[in-house]
Amino acid sequence: MFGAIEAGGTKFVCGVGTGPGDLETIQIPTTSPAATIDAAIDFFRPHRSELCAIGIASFGPVDLRVDSWTYGYITSTPKPGWRNVDLAGAIRKSLDLPIGFDTDVNGAALGEARWGAARKLTDFLYLTVGTGIGGGALAEGQVVHGLIHPEMGHIRVPHDHANDPFEGSCPFHGDCLEGLASGPAIQARWGVSGRDLPIGHPGIALEASYLALGLANWVCTLSPQRIVMGGGVMQQERLFPLIRQELLRLLNGYIAAREITECVDQFIVPAGLGSRAGVLGALVLAEQAAKAND
Amino acid sequence: MFGAIEAGGTKFVCGVGTGPGDLETIQIPTTSPAATIDAAIDFFRPHRSELCAIGIASFGPVDLRVDSWTYGYITSTPKPGWRNVDLAGAIRKSLDLPIGFDTDVNGAALGEARWGAARKLTDFLYLTVGTGIGGGALAEGQVVHGLIHPEMGHIRVPHDHANDPFEGSCPFHGDCLEGLASGPAIQARWGVSGRDLPIGHPGIALEASYLALGLANWVCTLSPQRIVMGGGVMQQERLFPLIRQELLRLLNGYIAAREITECVDQFIVPAGLGSRAGVLGALVLAEQAAKAND
Repeated sequence: MFGAIEAGGTKFVCGVGTGPGDLETIQIPTTSPAATIDAAIDFFRPHRSELCAIGIASFGPVDLRVDSWTYGYITSTPKPGWRNVDLAGAIRKSLDLPIGFDTDVNGAALGEARWGAARKLTDFLYLTVGTGIGGGALAEGQVVHGLIHPEMGHIRVPHDHANDPFEGSCPFHGDCLEGLASGPAIQARWGVSGRDLPIGHPGIALEASYLALGLANWVCTLSPQRIVMGGGVMQQERLFPLIRQELLRLLNGYIAAREITECVDQFIVPAGLGSRAGVLGALVLAEQAAKAND
Repeated sequence: MFGAIEAGGTKFVCGVGTGPGDLETIQIPTTSPAATIDAAIDFFRPHRSELCAIGIASFGPVDLRVDSWTYGYITSTPKPGWRNVDLAGAIRKSLDLPIGFDTDVNGAALGEARWGAARKLTDFLYLTVGTGIGGGALAEGQVVHGLIHPEMGHIRVPHDHANDPFEGSCPFHGDCLEGLASGPAIQARWGVSGRDLPIGHPGIALEASYLALGLANWVCTLSPQRIVMGGGVMQQERLFPLIRQELLRLLNGYIAAREITECVDQFIVPAGLGSRAGVLGALVLAEQAAKAND
């Protein structure tokens, strides 16, 4: 059995199990690092003897470089109190188990690859659109990490100020994609949350157009076999057909792949694991850590 | 010994050798497929018995799926006469050698990784800015291919029409990055080529600002350890400091990696192999094909 933590900015989801069929989870509100991490450890302690490893899929930025002295830390987050917190180290020291550690979106991508909407794919993008916009990618079967880890939500896309005078909500970049199309951006622009935008509201088409611009850029950069979209904003299901249509318009036939041009309904899909992608992905991280420890 | 072909839209560079020290090349103007490919075969034929394999780094789009019946073809190119040309097959059939085949930019990325400015890196981007804009990426040590292959030049970036009324030169997308910042775009906008823009010409800063937008998006998407830039436009060396400065301004400290924030001169660098990156990359493709054939 494995332990799994989806460490989010508002809640920690902790679970034990082996997969979607038997995973039992609890939720812990994210308060101070000490209180939150202690509550997570308390959840796992009774299961300690059954567990082979614990996986953590964490909000970030995080340090994923195994040779770094801050490996396993949450690093430069603006979240009060959570800057430079040794999340993986605290769990490992208390429970003395191998720890798998990655970003929340990389974890969710792994979960979708194992049990969700990206099974058998070697190259795909998992994108979450909620409080922030984040992406986890597999390329050639490997999770993309690179120098730090991707921060996909912060790409720049065209912003027609005449059509959308909203300046963007990203404290670092203003009108990057996250600044234009995250949940808080929708709330700030329209005074209503993304999932509550009513039928016919102009915010739905605008949101779809920004997300499609992001997807077009990732299609050109990563050439994914599929894009899996989750997060609170994507619970507004009307977005999916609009995004697909706008993506095709933007690509304009240049990427001559039938998987895109003729099967866009299977190319842009909702997360198969819904809101459990992250914690199930953490379970995959635990499995990997156990294997690496063998 | 290996054979190498950099198959470009204006010339084929063919070579035999084992690396930068002994590679001997010739150039063949790209005319009709039959004449060009026959000339390449004629170059290799006297070396046939010494060669273990031939690598081809080709302009595209190309079909890289080994299980496809058009594997090794140049596919949907707008170049007259070259649509659906079985480039790899023609070379293989005539010379009866294992063939390595990839895009020109993926080849150049492999060349830079082996002998150039990206040695020992597992995650980097090679970008060429010339007749078109193209990128080849390594992620976790693997060349990124995905569904088809990346077409990085076609990402959308902000375009301030008030500051730059040029509509863009891409026949598919108008003002995608390639449409705004490729060599032909510079020529169409200013009536002068990128490398000939004189000191103080506003086109230099504008070009740097577009390229920096592209790089910012790729930094956020791929988290490269380095970005290597080649191609005719990048022979305008004044671009490098402007691009670096603008990239730092765009990222605004969000990607908290000292490799970027403190060492941007080593983060954005010119191609180490210059114009030989492609043909040397084809040599790496040949090596890989020989190994796969063993």
